[in-house]
Amino acid sequence: LNAGQLAFPFRRFQIGKVYRGERAQRGRFREFYQADIDVIGDGALDIINDAEMPSIIYRAFTALGLRRFVIRINNRKLLSGLFALMGVETEKAGDVMRIIDKLEKIGREKVAALLVELGLAQDKADALLDLLTCSDRGEDPLQQLDAFASQNEQFDAGLNELRTVASLMAGFGVPETHFKIDLTIARGLDYYTGTVYETHLLDHPEIGSICSGGRYDNLAGYYTDRKLPGVGLSIGLTRLFFVLQDQGYLSPSLLTAPADVLVIPMTEDFAPAVQLATALREAGLRTQIYSENKKFKARLQYADKLGIPFVVFLGEDEINSGKITVKDMASGEQTTASPTMLISGMLQRVAALREGAPIRDKGGE
Amino acid sequence: LNAGQLAFPFRRFQIGKVYRGERAQRGRFREFYQADIDVIGDGALDIINDAEMPSIIYRAFTALGLRRFVIRINNRKLLSGLFALMGVETEKAGDVMRIIDKLEKIGREKVAALLVELGLAQDKADALLDLLTCSDRGEDPLQQLDAFASQNEQFDAGLNELRTVASLMAGFGVPETHFKIDLTIARGLDYYTGTVYETHLLDHPEIGSICSGGRYDNLAGYYTDRKLPGVGLSIGLTRLFFVLQDQGYLSPSLLTAPADVLVIPMTEDFAPAVQLATALREAGLRTQIYSENKKFKARLQYADKLGIPFVVFLGEDEINSGKITVKDMASGEQTTASPTMLISGMLQRVAALREGAPIRDKGGE
Repeated sequence: LNAGQLAFPFRRFQIGKVYRGERAQRGRFREFYQADIDVIGDGALDIINDAEMPSIIYRAFTALGLRRFVIRINNRKLLSGLFALMGVETEKAGDVMRIIDKLEKIGREKVAALLVELGLAQDKADALLDLLTCSDRGEDPLQQLDAFASQNEQFDAGLNELRTVASLMAGFGVPETHFKIDLTIARGLDYYTGTVYETHLLDHPEIGSICSGGRYDNLAGYYTDRKLPGVGLSIGLTRLFFVLQDQGYLSPSLLTAPADVLVIPMTEDFAPAVQLATALREAGLRTQIYSENKKFKARLQYADKLGIPFVVFLGEDEINSGKITVKDMASGEQTTASPTMLISGMLQRVAALREGAPIRDKGGE
Repeated sequence: LNAGQLAFPFRRFQIGKVYRGERAQRGRFREFYQADIDVIGDGALDIINDAEMPSIIYRAFTALGLRRFVIRINNRKLLSGLFALMGVETEKAGDVMRIIDKLEKIGREKVAALLVELGLAQDKADALLDLLTCSDRGEDPLQQLDAFASQNEQFDAGLNELRTVASLMAGFGVPETHFKIDLTIARGLDYYTGTVYETHLLDHPEIGSICSGGRYDNLAGYYTDRKLPGVGLSIGLTRLFFVLQDQGYLSPSLLTAPADVLVIPMTEDFAPAVQLATALREAGLRTQIYSENKKFKARLQYADKLGIPFVVFLGEDEINSGKITVKDMASGEQTTASPTMLISGMLQRVAALREGAPIRDKGGE
């Protein structure tokens, strides 16, 4: 750790390849891209950061075009305190956490059975599950939890944190429709110490969380004696885009081609095409020359396969008259005029193609 | 190789970590970032691509602010043919190539000695070195080479390619000041089959090539039976930025801070700061809240260390009057007014800070 050279609180964001030890599944590859945001404090890190991290995710998802998602938040201190109040032994809190985390996957009955198996009385297990799922019945979790206040220090600390985070998230501009206190979220990983997050697409609960994380006050303890508490969120990009692609979320009209214009020279001498391509590039159009000796149809197919919106033909006639022929690949329309006449139209069309959001949130339209 | 799914010519650019087998040196790390551009053809790849690749590098370097550099080009077919004409046995052409490549490092005399050692007659070695360095004496290499035309097929092919590449590079908008035919460039690596490139900073020849590459017609042959000729250029980014930093090329005024504004709340309750930060973000300013319980001086130092241009103070007085106090960290000037009054000024200043080129080419100013 180069902790000595950093300015704390240290904020990092990173997009990179990461690896998973578990077995690969559909859309869950062993090597995948992950995007992380984290903030790490030196000694202490204010709870305000627990509210700011999800607000950044809200902004990023919204900017990409995603609308119908909800960031769910919970607090593990609150859960641990609650378990203690329900008579769960401290050393079993982690096990209960992992069982609770399976609620969505295996259902309430199986979770209750597992809790009883772990030593919880049937009525305590029922009471616990009633409480954790109270928002499903339209009840306000914070209000329900208030009934347990002032009996357990950890519970009180957690409840206070959760209340603060929820209030500050609203302050950071996350609308009520996009976050939710969900007491059933525990996160399986043991290093989370307070706030935990999961993010779900409203129309695709089966996909699971697309962005998760939480507060980890002791994680850096593996590497250094310094106390470096942090809070962060991760997006499994490979999986997210696999799923978005699969569900038709990715906007097909968005310009993803490596070029805006393909210049097809119709003469042996490439010099006029090179000159034209240079002029088009200087005007701001990303330009490629098709220089392979292929049939006319194959040249057009190349533009089509790459999704290049415009093809420019440059033959003897055009060179002699100082004109070019532009084919709009979407409409099939062909226009012959001087390059200067045609450039601004192409620039406008390309700017329009670029403007749309990359993710087309079907539910929100 | 997923060659079956690609559209040829396939153009790729990639920035990623790569590793070197050689020993590490100052600025030459074992793990480093490299940027590559390549174009790969299916069966054939027109010579026009050999001219386009360096023109892309010219554009990229110029856009970054680099001015005083020269892209040197040569052709290995031409060299091989020339060696044959000088009486070098075919199987020794590679060795001669590697010796020639050392010209800049070890000087003409040692190179001549190595060539004689390899079996070349002293007068042949001298004639060869005279020819290769003819541009140092103000002679035109293409004109000098013409004297050897029509005696060796490979030589003729190489000379023709070199002449075409030079002519098309000018067509692609690379000014004569920024490229040069240099017959002493051979590139040590055996997989180059035609055009080769090196790029040097005019004011720092000692740095060596900052961007090199060439045509490789048989490289993919290691992996597939298909003929996939390619041409490409690589920039060793880690080394380049190490050198640029070391030589004071990186512009210190360019905004590299992770935020434009640091909001420092002077009250216990963070809610007003959160609200303000949200408003600043919505106005387009990248905003961070300083939430740590540190002394006033330490808070300012944090902004200073990260290079954040503006600090906003939010105390009781400001909150009650609906105003904020903005400190411009560069000038030290402090202004108190409503956020709306101050936002456009901050946006303008930030836009101006962002505008400069990242590389400040000292020789060109």
